[in-house]
Amino acid sequence: MAEPKAVVLLSGGLDSATVLAIARANGFACHALSVDYGQRHAAELAAAARVAQALGAVAHRIVKLDLATFGGSALTAADIAVPIDGVKADAIPVTYVPARNTILLALALAWSEVLGARDIFFGANAIDYSGYPDCRPQFVRAFEVVANLATKAAVEGARFSLRTPIIDLTKADIIRRGVALGVDLSLTVSCYQADPDGRACGLCDACRLRRAGFEAAGMPDPTRYFGRA
Amino acid sequence: MAEPKAVVLLSGGLDSATVLAIARANGFACHALSVDYGQRHAAELAAAARVAQALGAVAHRIVKLDLATFGGSALTAADIAVPIDGVKADAIPVTYVPARNTILLALALAWSEVLGARDIFFGANAIDYSGYPDCRPQFVRAFEVVANLATKAAVEGARFSLRTPIIDLTKADIIRRGVALGVDLSLTVSCYQADPDGRACGLCDACRLRRAGFEAAGMPDPTRYFGRA
Repeated sequence: MAEPKAVVLLSGGLDSATVLAIARANGFACHALSVDYGQRHAAELAAAARVAQALGAVAHRIVKLDLATFGGSALTAADIAVPIDGVKADAIPVTYVPARNTILLALALAWSEVLGARDIFFGANAIDYSGYPDCRPQFVRAFEVVANLATKAAVEGARFSLRTPIIDLTKADIIRRGVALGVDLSLTVSCYQADPDGRACGLCDACRLRRAGFEAAGMPDPTRYFGRA
Repeated sequence: MAEPKAVVLLSGGLDSATVLAIARANGFACHALSVDYGQRHAAELAAAARVAQALGAVAHRIVKLDLATFGGSALTAADIAVPIDGVKADAIPVTYVPARNTILLALALAWSEVLGARDIFFGANAIDYSGYPDCRPQFVRAFEVVANLATKAAVEGARFSLRTPIIDLTKADIIRRGVALGVDLSLTVSCYQADPDGRACGLCDACRLRRAGFEAAGMPDPTRYFGRA
C-alpha cells in the first residue's frame, strides 16, 4: 500500500528537520515545503534543500513570497537589527514576523489539498522558543479549525490534521530525538543572520537557544560559527 | 483625528470594489491589497489598481505569490479549463483555488499588523457565489479567531476584526450598493478568463453571476465582452 502523503513545513533549522524525520518515521511520504519570504538568513533555504534530500522527502518546493513588502520584522526589514543581547522571557522580540506562521500554514494547506494529503507537519515549539504567538498550541488548534472549514476537501469529508510533534519538547529533547532518528544536525541552519555559507553568529536568540539545547542534551554542537562566537 | 487604517482585499472584481467603497464610506484610511497568485485573469490586477485609485485608497500593494506552483485549479493551472456551461448549485467548481482565501487573509493580517490596522475588509459573498467553502460565514469567523491568536498585536491587547459587509447580499444588492457609493463598475473585471484588455467571456460562472446581478438590479451592464457573448 502506498504511504499516505504529508506536507512538512521545512525551514532548514533543526526543529523542522527533526519534524521531517518524525513524519518519515511515522510512514508518511513527505512533501517538504519551504518559503522564501525575503528572510535575511537565506542560507536556511539551502539547508532545507539538503535536509529534504538527506531525510528522503519525496518532493521539496520553495515558494517565493516577498514579505519584505510589508516589513515590520528584523528578519525581513534591513533597517531593523537582529537582537544579540540574549533571550528575553517577557517580550516578543523584533524577530517576530507578522502573521508568518499563518501564512506558512495556509500555503501548506493549499499544497496538501492539491496533493490529497491530510496531514500537515509543523515544527512549532512552545518551550525553548522566543515567545512567538503563532507557535502556541491554541493557535495551532485554531488554524486546524480553519483548515477544516476553508477547503473543498473538507466539505467533501476529508479531515486535515495539523501535527506538531515537538510543540511540548525542550530544545534538548528535540536534539536527542533528531539524532536518534538519524538527522545530521550539522546540515541545519538556525541562525537569524547566518552568512551565505550557513555559518552562525552565535549571538542571536536562535543561536542561543540552539547552543543551550546541545549543552543540555550533552551533545557536541556541530554548528559552524563565524566571528568571535 | 486621523482616520483609522484598514486593509481591504481588492481583487479587481465588483464585489471587492464595493467593499472598498463601503470601507471608505465608514471612514477608514484604506490600504488595498491584491495578490498576483498566477491567476489566468491577470487583467483583474490592472482593474484593482484602477479601482484603488478611483476610490481613494491611500495605498495599493500587489504581492506576488506563485500558487501555480501547487496547481489544482482552473484559475492557476493551464491544463484545467474554466467551465463555461453554467453555474452548478450542487458542486464546488474547478475554479476553486485550494486555500486561496486563507492565504489572502493571512497576507492581509500580516500587512494589518505592520500598519497598526485592526480592520480587515474582505469581499466574501455567500449568496450569489460559486459555492466556495472559504466564502462562508463560519470560515470567516474561524479565521478571525486565528488572527486574534496568531499575532503579537493581539497578545498585546489589540483586537482584529474581519469585516465582510457584503456576505449576505445578493449580487444585485452589491451592485446597487456599489453604484450608490459612486463605484464606477465599468472599471472592474470579474471574468475568470478576461483578455489582457479586461474584456469578459460572458460564459464563465463569474460572468454569469455578474450579468444576472445587473439584470436583477435593473441596471445597465457596463461589462465589455469579447467574442459572441
